[in-house]
Amino acid sequence: MSRAFNFCAGPATLPETVLEQARDEMLDWRGTGMSVMEMSHRSDEFVQIAEAAENDLRELAGVSDDYAVLFMQGGASSQFATIPLNLLGSKASADYVNTGIWSKKAIAEAKRYGDVNVAASSEDSGFTTVPDQASWHTRADAAYLHYTPNETIGGLEYDFIPDSGKVPLVADMSSTMLSRPVDISKFGLIYAGAQKNIGPSGLVVVIIRKDLLGMARKETPTMMNYQVIADNGSMYNTPATYSWYLAGLVFKWLKAQGGVKAMGEINYRKAKKLYDFIDTNDFYANPIAPRFRSWMNIPFTLADDGLNGEFLKGANACGLLNLKGHRSVGGMRASIYNAMPEAGVDALIRYMAEFAKERG
Amino acid sequence: MSRAFNFCAGPATLPETVLEQARDEMLDWRGTGMSVMEMSHRSDEFVQIAEAAENDLRELAGVSDDYAVLFMQGGASSQFATIPLNLLGSKASADYVNTGIWSKKAIAEAKRYGDVNVAASSEDSGFTTVPDQASWHTRADAAYLHYTPNETIGGLEYDFIPDSGKVPLVADMSSTMLSRPVDISKFGLIYAGAQKNIGPSGLVVVIIRKDLLGMARKETPTMMNYQVIADNGSMYNTPATYSWYLAGLVFKWLKAQGGVKAMGEINYRKAKKLYDFIDTNDFYANPIAPRFRSWMNIPFTLADDGLNGEFLKGANACGLLNLKGHRSVGGMRASIYNAMPEAGVDALIRYMAEFAKERG
Repeated sequence: MSRAFNFCAGPATLPETVLEQARDEMLDWRGTGMSVMEMSHRSDEFVQIAEAAENDLRELAGVSDDYAVLFMQGGASSQFATIPLNLLGSKASADYVNTGIWSKKAIAEAKRYGDVNVAASSEDSGFTTVPDQASWHTRADAAYLHYTPNETIGGLEYDFIPDSGKVPLVADMSSTMLSRPVDISKFGLIYAGAQKNIGPSGLVVVIIRKDLLGMARKETPTMMNYQVIADNGSMYNTPATYSWYLAGLVFKWLKAQGGVKAMGEINYRKAKKLYDFIDTNDFYANPIAPRFRSWMNIPFTLADDGLNGEFLKGANACGLLNLKGHRSVGGMRASIYNAMPEAGVDALIRYMAEFAKERG
Repeated sequence: MSRAFNFCAGPATLPETVLEQARDEMLDWRGTGMSVMEMSHRSDEFVQIAEAAENDLRELAGVSDDYAVLFMQGGASSQFATIPLNLLGSKASADYVNTGIWSKKAIAEAKRYGDVNVAASSEDSGFTTVPDQASWHTRADAAYLHYTPNETIGGLEYDFIPDSGKVPLVADMSSTMLSRPVDISKFGLIYAGAQKNIGPSGLVVVIIRKDLLGMARKETPTMMNYQVIADNGSMYNTPATYSWYLAGLVFKWLKAQGGVKAMGEINYRKAKKLYDFIDTNDFYANPIAPRFRSWMNIPFTLADDGLNGEFLKGANACGLLNLKGHRSVGGMRASIYNAMPEAGVDALIRYMAEFAKERG
């Protein structure tokens, strides 16, 4: 088969030109006689790759020198523990907003390390909306306020950045990072598992305001101590070098597309097309409040659940892959991250229209 | 440049055929239209890749069903904390043997979680030998006995498996895993960072006797809890899928070479050649007690340290890369893991002989 359109929520499709470059450089990176994955992480060559990736990320996301950028291992799930271990400090508690499955996981893990105040929740609505910030029960003495700007599974995305006052704002941007412009200066800490918009799984990017370093609890594993990772340029131990390199290629690709502003416009257009189609076709439905619909993860249901299998089989046959919804939600989900070409969304809509016409 | 001989201690050289296969499959794994790094970790395709890797590893290393095999993230350094967090249980202390820099790092991290008894140390000798086991002050009530079968930096390797009685034996096999036959049944837990003999960095393989699962301390981060990782087939969160795939390719390659028995014979021959040359040439020296010389990492010094720069420059020029010794030891180090062809060792010896003749 030629390249398919892969709607997987993560690990997710990557830009074809990035994969082509990785392929071409696999046995010999720029005349060194080595693959990047065979290079010492302390070599001039790899340090150059690593620094270029950090600089490009800083430029793309607009990250100032007030922040450290960390390339850590383990994914967002390990950050669920790393964050309270590092940021609770002498504070008794942290605030969390619950808007879906990933929020809940973050909350459950944080509860193991301190008092967690669930400041707001949209669980009663089936996570189809974001609670109005005026109703949040945040606390001025919280160590931080944690939220999940985009819920990958539910397909719910904030259209605002919460105002946390002087309390550091912490965000799991795994599935929205670099998909549109964001004012980083409003955050204390941002983290993002790489396997959606950045690169392969096994890498997590952390952007942390430098004044939040140095507060780790005594029992924090060294490899989870932000201060240690920052002091060592994310090379306290051997980092995930190949994933870091691939992230760097993705950042270069993003810059060539015009950066996150251009990407945001494309992503808005892609998402709007698909939602508009879903809304105007009686056979399909999306349950999320329109204002909070994700640009990245678009769940939808068929009028008849009994046709799900046939829908997926037909989609697979025309190279539209991984449309099955998360097991906790059911139905379908199209994840359309940065690397999903607009042609993929067009092809999906064509298929959906045909399927509805024939089977609806 | 064509492919060089890369003597890096890790990340390290990989088999050329493995890299070729990875290159060829980069954009489309077996007609799926996706790269492996774009696949859902829960897809049939990836589960097949993951299971094949585990099965091949079990076959290669002779791992019985009494053991769980985990593909974790973070490297050996994160295991330094993971091990005491999981294995100390209700015991007051653990025994560690100190034979070099990696032992010391493991000890330092474990001390943060409990009482560590350094049962023996060869630090007085400059880590040039392994203390006779008769002299070890182990304790019958220790939670476990930890040692480092091969010290990557010092180039020191045990030629025996310590007898730990009923105390579980824990080994950091990062730089010796799969390099020769080992009786796994003598161990409670083995761990190995992938970036030497297994694959790219960012992956750590853990082989743990199942009766040692389920003892994690309350404060253990979920992603560090062996029981959780085992219960979820190393997919509690998104694992480092691409590294896992590459490890699988390396395991297939190892099987094609005849497995660890054949590999051990080749490795013995490669190491013997280089040590024999060093011992018979007055210009070079290796400080390690012959019985405990590593088959994997061979440090050596030049008679005149002032020539180190010239030696390295000349080596680079003929495609013999990364021979510089670790900053803590100085001199040179040739890491000759499984994937270093015998021809690489021959080329190194030829270069060393010429250099000694011209400059010695």
